[in-house]
Amino acid sequence: MQQMLLAIPAAGVLALIYAAYTSFWIKGRDAGNERMQNIATQIQRGAMAFLRAEYSVLIGFVALVAFGLFMLNRTEPTSDPLVALSFVLGAGASGLAGFFGMRVATQANVRTAAAARTGLAPALQIAFRGGAVMGMSVVGLALLGLGSLFWFYLGQFKVDITALDTAINGFRFSKLINVLAGFSMGASSIALFARVGGGIYTKAADVGADLVGKVEAGIPEDHFLNPATIADNVGDNVGDVAGMGADLFESYVGSIIGAMILGAVAVHGGFEAALLPLILAAVGIVVSILGTFVVRTKEGGNPQIALDAGSFGAAAVMLGLSYLIIDYFVKMAGPAGIQFAEFDGPLQTLHLFYPMVVGLVAGVVIGLVTGYYCSKGKKPVNSIVDQSKTGPATNIIAGIGVGFESTAIPILLIAVAIYVANLYAGLYGVALAAVGMLSTTGIQLAVDAYGPISDNAGGIAEMSGLPSKVRERTDNLDAVGNTTAAIGKGFAIASAALAALSLFAAYRKLALGNTDIVLTDPEVLIGMLLGGMLPFLFSAMAMKAVGAAAMEMIEEVRRQFKDIPVLRKALILVAKAEEEDRELTEEEDAEVIAAGKKTEVEKCVAISTKASIKRMVMPGLLALAAPLIVGWWSPFALGGLLAGTLVSGVMLAIFMSNAGGAWDNAKKQVEDQKRDVEKNTGKGSERHKAAVIGDTVGDPFKDTAGPSLNILIKLMTIVAVVIAPHINPDKEDVAAAAAQLEAQAASDEAGAAGDKAGDKAKPNGDAKPH
Amino acid sequence: MQQMLLAIPAAGVLALIYAAYTSFWIKGRDAGNERMQNIATQIQRGAMAFLRAEYSVLIGFVALVAFGLFMLNRTEPTSDPLVALSFVLGAGASGLAGFFGMRVATQANVRTAAAARTGLAPALQIAFRGGAVMGMSVVGLALLGLGSLFWFYLGQFKVDITALDTAINGFRFSKLINVLAGFSMGASSIALFARVGGGIYTKAADVGADLVGKVEAGIPEDHFLNPATIADNVGDNVGDVAGMGADLFESYVGSIIGAMILGAVAVHGGFEAALLPLILAAVGIVVSILGTFVVRTKEGGNPQIALDAGSFGAAAVMLGLSYLIIDYFVKMAGPAGIQFAEFDGPLQTLHLFYPMVVGLVAGVVIGLVTGYYCSKGKKPVNSIVDQSKTGPATNIIAGIGVGFESTAIPILLIAVAIYVANLYAGLYGVALAAVGMLSTTGIQLAVDAYGPISDNAGGIAEMSGLPSKVRERTDNLDAVGNTTAAIGKGFAIASAALAALSLFAAYRKLALGNTDIVLTDPEVLIGMLLGGMLPFLFSAMAMKAVGAAAMEMIEEVRRQFKDIPVLRKALILVAKAEEEDRELTEEEDAEVIAAGKKTEVEKCVAISTKASIKRMVMPGLLALAAPLIVGWWSPFALGGLLAGTLVSGVMLAIFMSNAGGAWDNAKKQVEDQKRDVEKNTGKGSERHKAAVIGDTVGDPFKDTAGPSLNILIKLMTIVAVVIAPHINPDKEDVAAAAAQLEAQAASDEAGAAGDKAGDKAKPNGDAKPH
Repeated sequence: MQQMLLAIPAAGVLALIYAAYTSFWIKGRDAGNERMQNIATQIQRGAMAFLRAEYSVLIGFVALVAFGLFMLNRTEPTSDPLVALSFVLGAGASGLAGFFGMRVATQANVRTAAAARTGLAPALQIAFRGGAVMGMSVVGLALLGLGSLFWFYLGQFKVDITALDTAINGFRFSKLINVLAGFSMGASSIALFARVGGGIYTKAADVGADLVGKVEAGIPEDHFLNPATIADNVGDNVGDVAGMGADLFESYVGSIIGAMILGAVAVHGGFEAALLPLILAAVGIVVSILGTFVVRTKEGGNPQIALDAGSFGAAAVMLGLSYLIIDYFVKMAGPAGIQFAEFDGPLQTLHLFYPMVVGLVAGVVIGLVTGYYCSKGKKPVNSIVDQSKTGPATNIIAGIGVGFESTAIPILLIAVAIYVANLYAGLYGVALAAVGMLSTTGIQLAVDAYGPISDNAGGIAEMSGLPSKVRERTDNLDAVGNTTAAIGKGFAIASAALAALSLFAAYRKLALGNTDIVLTDPEVLIGMLLGGMLPFLFSAMAMKAVGAAAMEMIEEVRRQFKDIPVLRKALILVAKAEEEDRELTEEEDAEVIAAGKKTEVEKCVAISTKASIKRMVMPGLLALAAPLIVGWWSPFALGGLLAGTLVSGVMLAIFMSNAGGAWDNAKKQVEDQKRDVEKNTGKGSERHKAAVIGDTVGDPFKDTAGPSLNILIKLMTIVAVVIAPHINPDKEDVAAAAAQLEAQAASDEAGAAGDKAGDKAKPNGDAKPH
Repeated sequence: MQQMLLAIPAAGVLALIYAAYTSFWIKGRDAGNERMQNIATQIQRGAMAFLRAEYSVLIGFVALVAFGLFMLNRTEPTSDPLVALSFVLGAGASGLAGFFGMRVATQANVRTAAAARTGLAPALQIAFRGGAVMGMSVVGLALLGLGSLFWFYLGQFKVDITALDTAINGFRFSKLINVLAGFSMGASSIALFARVGGGIYTKAADVGADLVGKVEAGIPEDHFLNPATIADNVGDNVGDVAGMGADLFESYVGSIIGAMILGAVAVHGGFEAALLPLILAAVGIVVSILGTFVVRTKEGGNPQIALDAGSFGAAAVMLGLSYLIIDYFVKMAGPAGIQFAEFDGPLQTLHLFYPMVVGLVAGVVIGLVTGYYCSKGKKPVNSIVDQSKTGPATNIIAGIGVGFESTAIPILLIAVAIYVANLYAGLYGVALAAVGMLSTTGIQLAVDAYGPISDNAGGIAEMSGLPSKVRERTDNLDAVGNTTAAIGKGFAIASAALAALSLFAAYRKLALGNTDIVLTDPEVLIGMLLGGMLPFLFSAMAMKAVGAAAMEMIEEVRRQFKDIPVLRKALILVAKAEEEDRELTEEEDAEVIAAGKKTEVEKCVAISTKASIKRMVMPGLLALAAPLIVGWWSPFALGGLLAGTLVSGVMLAIFMSNAGGAWDNAKKQVEDQKRDVEKNTGKGSERHKAAVIGDTVGDPFKDTAGPSLNILIKLMTIVAVVIAPHINPDKEDVAAAAAQLEAQAASDEAGAAGDKAGDKAKPNGDAKPH
């Protein structure tokens, strides 16, 4: 058993070694010419400046919350002040994962661009490995943190894992897991701020750059004459890389903790049930690392196939291994096996395996449906392209319709997954389904993060005036992996819903013991209505933040375009060439490059940084304060609050992500059309203008508010779990029982000093030697 | 008691007499010159054509559902095939109310325009009285139907209202109320179709007319050169008048039935508790009629004051009378009073009065908040105007942000109302709060319907080329009453939420007896997720329907503008005059009028009619089928479904209504600005174009999807209530108990033939003579 406990942090360390090695490898690649390096340095500096600003705010926040958790749990018999330690480590690990990932991403981008000068294959290699550093940092730090804390707390709380069936050990173990949940709360808090802050940053810059550059001035995307382009590229890193990393760190940890809590309540085999998700995650790391080696392509090969092979291959292998691991655990739990109160007799291997299968299948299908709703050439996007013909209003109406509609099938699939998982293994099964989906997060996230790196590489290629072939290659890289990324999104949504459900069940158990939360209780209904409202209020804050920041950005870019004469002149040259669909002459090119040096890039970077830091605070506090306030009023209302937030949050998240994705690809589809103003098709047509507006509206949907909602749901639930012991109406009784148990244990231990075998004589089927 | 029972339908008849008298009065007013009458006739014909088409589809639907209800309840001991009769009458009354209201509205509009030629006061008189016909038809038909059915069923089911405490009478009474609920289901079904169909109609026409006429051709709103203008004006009638009428009919009936069901479960005084909402509604009718006489203004007076006096005055008087009525009922229930299981001892007058007060206050404040979010010059609309500066994308982002944010305070207020009402009188209190808000629906709806009549009058004035002073007057009429209308909206939202809650509680009681619906039960959670998704799917259908129909409309208008040469020429004249801000010369005017006769208005009318009828079917079926399917699977999941739909439906409804309202007024505020293209303000500026696009997107939000969601929530709940006896897991036991009760009653009655006093000897405190 001891080896197995150590295998968990060891797998984390392995992932970190892989990440460190890969990151050195990337650093050793060619970083391109001076102009490229200059641009890359600007992006890197902007990204690090943001991270510094963000973390300096968050350190204060983390310290404050940790202090509160410490004070609150000083005298709580069913929890422990160590929850503050868990919280700080969770927050720190999440922050560190974001930092590592972004650091490497900002090195990989320019090197990908440099490699793309020679071919597609080497560029893919660098971009993907850059993503892999992010992926492995996330899972590595998560398992290192969780695994070490678990091991440490087992000793600290004197849990005898061979005798978990005894009252005292059962009590201590459930206390341990409650303390461990602080790690998840720390991770979720940082994730929320990172997602919201990063999301505001990237979209303020993106919206600003696109509207003035593309729409008003008529210059290409990412053109270096546009002073907001650097901020836009910084945004890709802080939002799509660091934000996403923190997000998945949170999902990963949350789903594991959720399964652990629900496993621990087993009437028999609770330790095995709680350990299983950690071991699945540890094995998932190894499989993910092996998967990364599959991702390589020859020149002229299809990078899509390479990515799919790596990520699907890993998932398939993991599924097979899961069966073996589950089987091993079921046997390890002895003849009494893993038993839950709601089932007669022990669960069989298949009972635990089916939930994982159904979770995985639901995740994949949701991903495919997501892909369908957001892909070029499919009916939903076609309908938006079609309705863009009559202008921005019908484009927006169509996009919102598509987004609303796209909630239907994923929710049906989640419902089926819950049904099946619950049928075979109760709520523990639901939690396992989420763990199954996220076990290969390492490679999954590598594929996700590879997108923004390629995107950035394209930006750098464009800005540094590399031949258009280079840009084509990076665009090609960016375009593939979309299916895989869509499936990743499906996993994120489905696992968030399932993990939130399991944490929700854990909350009920911890806060109310065996009392039910009854749906027709007016307190519960009040909580549900308030909870349903929070995702809307939260999204409002995010949208308004992006709107306000984007407007500042637009005005700054307009001001520069107006006030800097050489810039104004250069813009006209570029726009004219663009309209005539030709390259600039050499003379013109020199003039434009000279003008580019006059842009005041740093002003745009400052606008995004300031706005995002300032405006990430309120939504974050809302998420933390709401469960605290409602919980202190009534633990039943808090149950309703969590359910309400889950329901409306999941819907809004799916709606916003998919509407944004569909608008984005509708615009791209219009750009693929033949340019014909008469027929109202292609770039420069009225249809294109409408499509660009839709895309712009979709930006904060899909990259700011939408993805933050998943975190909001889980952060609120994990806060509820952490405060649960304090709002339990039977708190006094529970505390008295706990005190009695500990007193009994203390006197037993005193007695056992003479008779060492005393405590172990209790009946327990899995008393294996370790 | 008998007199009181008859007072209910009598109040309904009184309202209908008032409506009939007023409608004759309106018909006697001057209908303007020939050109005006021609236009009015076109609108009238279009409206009636739509209603014919709609009703011919709905008749089949009603027959089918009625047949289903009849067959289903043939052998059900706890219900009765008479539920089919209730359903048909509810559907018929709702349809009739819509028909009456629209018929008068399409007569009042042209007469209002004609009266506006002489002054504001007579125009207000006609427009308001037109609205009053609608209002009184709604409440009159509702109470006539409910009251007569109640009286009829009391005899039919042989309920001895003086001995409700006996098991047999209690059983029969609860069966009666379940059968009566069919009336509400009929009303809700028709309301949903009317709202969705009318909403699609009006917005397809509106969006089409605005985008091509105002934005592309640059001619004023409602200009007769625009062939979609007639359809637009027809739409105002079918959507804003008939649709709204059916909507409020449904709310009114639903809240009364909800309170009756919850009243009937009282352990003592159930009959009084069930009768109270009906009597409150009956008195509300008389108060509303008196209120309409207060609404009059002198020339130069402020119509706002007149409307507010009528509507607030009626509400205040009603509140005072409510206290007296409640007091009377509490006394009538005898010394044991009105008692519910969850309270010790009888409820006092104040216990029932406070919920009504808090409901009313919450409704008013929600209305004021709604007003704040949608009013010109207030911060939310200002922010949209401000962000319109940078184009349509930021306008849309700002509007969505405002809409999201606007959910917060109303939900908090609803939560407080539920809390207080429940504190004093349990769920019956919550239901009474809703009844209190809607008791003066008669005059409330008059003020609401007055808006579209004035709007139509303005359209007719514009199209028939009346002097601009006339249009100014009708615009003035249209602008006032906005506060009152906003408060009406607040009432609609809050009462929908409260009524749905009470129906939801009734469902639980009927379907599950004393078994609880537990929030952490996976079946309930599955239901909640599915339920939360339905409002999104439903809105998607509505939005897509509007988008597709609007596009057809746009293409038709564009085609006419392009293909009819005289029209093309006239458009240029008008647009030029508009741009130069001058009147047309007499010569130009003649040319334009001649061209106007060439527009093919009927084609646009046909597009809207066809599209709306075709596309109202699916959303309607969704609302009916979902609770049936889920309920048959699991009554617990159906509980979750209703809760999920309530939560996400209320949020979406508030969001969509308020975002739409805010965009609308942001556009109007831009139009109020000084026209200055350089400073980007006022008509013709880029800012204005952006604001028009926002307004267009908001149209289907606020007039199609948003208001339909309230009905969706309640329709699903009432369907659940009606099918509840059939999906009760303890159905067999309930049926056996019922059969035994009836057998016992039959033998008692046989015995009582000899001894007439037998059955009345049971203990009952309120055995008053009647």
